[in-house]
Amino acid sequence: MLPESLDRVINGFQRFPGIGQKTARRLGFHVLNSEPDDIRSFAEALKDLTENVKECPCCFNITESTPCQLCMDASRFKDLLCIVESSSDIPLLEQTGYKGMYHVLGGVLSPLDGIGVENLHIQEIAEKIDSVREIIIATNANIEGETTALYIVNLLRDKDVKITRLARGLPSGGHLEYVDELTLARSLEERVEISE
Amino acid sequence: MLPESLDRVINGFQRFPGIGQKTARRLGFHVLNSEPDDIRSFAEALKDLTENVKECPCCFNITESTPCQLCMDASRFKDLLCIVESSSDIPLLEQTGYKGMYHVLGGVLSPLDGIGVENLHIQEIAEKIDSVREIIIATNANIEGETTALYIVNLLRDKDVKITRLARGLPSGGHLEYVDELTLARSLEERVEISE
Repeated sequence: MLPESLDRVINGFQRFPGIGQKTARRLGFHVLNSEPDDIRSFAEALKDLTENVKECPCCFNITESTPCQLCMDASRFKDLLCIVESSSDIPLLEQTGYKGMYHVLGGVLSPLDGIGVENLHIQEIAEKIDSVREIIIATNANIEGETTALYIVNLLRDKDVKITRLARGLPSGGHLEYVDELTLARSLEERVEISE
Repeated sequence: MLPESLDRVINGFQRFPGIGQKTARRLGFHVLNSEPDDIRSFAEALKDLTENVKECPCCFNITESTPCQLCMDASRFKDLLCIVESSSDIPLLEQTGYKGMYHVLGGVLSPLDGIGVENLHIQEIAEKIDSVREIIIATNANIEGETTALYIVNLLRDKDVKITRLARGLPSGGHLEYVDELTLARSLEERVEISE
């Protein structure tokens, strides 16, 4: 009963994560009330994105240039390597002011989903390790993330490199009352001495 | 630091209602992980939508054909006219099994936003009233919606037509405890006799 092209747009929106039927319908009708030029350039951007963006051959970050801007940036510390699960983690770390290099795994080890070492950029870490002083493992703080971190630690066992991971503990501004048991237990375990 | 085409897609998503910076970023990265063909056809659908969809000259619903499918449907009751604020209300009413005609106002009276009678399809109601037995005003149950309904009632005062509006009262499945005062007062006012 809706015009066919509106139906297609609504179905398109529904394929995105976290967008259900009602939201998709609202977004579809919003397109109708938008400036046609805005929508056209959004549609062009979507097409460009599928065509222009590739994986950087050095760090496996997404990029339009080869190698990526981060790998080419001479002002960054080449001997500090941060290992992340996905390219989408990089903007978050950049916001903290981190100035080292990155290495994108492209996922985490998850045998149940059929994702093993051969599906990730894990072996490549060992290949670039010689010029690195410290590796920071910044995988997510869940089972898959921790397992992957452990695998990487084992892989690099014989190498002369410092390996660290992100601290676990109370989130900033967090109240003890609202923090889950596991986080509290971790923050107790990893307690830090207060120095004057 | 993100590739330029990804930035453009994220900015595009952020222009949609209810989509903030984080969600836009998540959706942008989702595009990268989607099938390029899916994204290309979504982009095409967006473009088609801005180009193909027009207003029906009879009921002012959105349509690709002229007049719209609903106006052309011979099986609908021509003497029953439901007045809605927006085209997006029509799918909702269709779901209830309503089988009459529609008339889309294209908004509601809102002097503060500079929307007056001349910006809406209100005068056109009077023009098509002669063949209509009953008009159902289905504007929203807020101040603007009620004001607009009142204006339409006044406009049609001298016409020989039955005018009704949607009932107000408890939502189905609603508990008295969770219903606001105004709704409860309305449902008391418009109480209905129980007939055996």
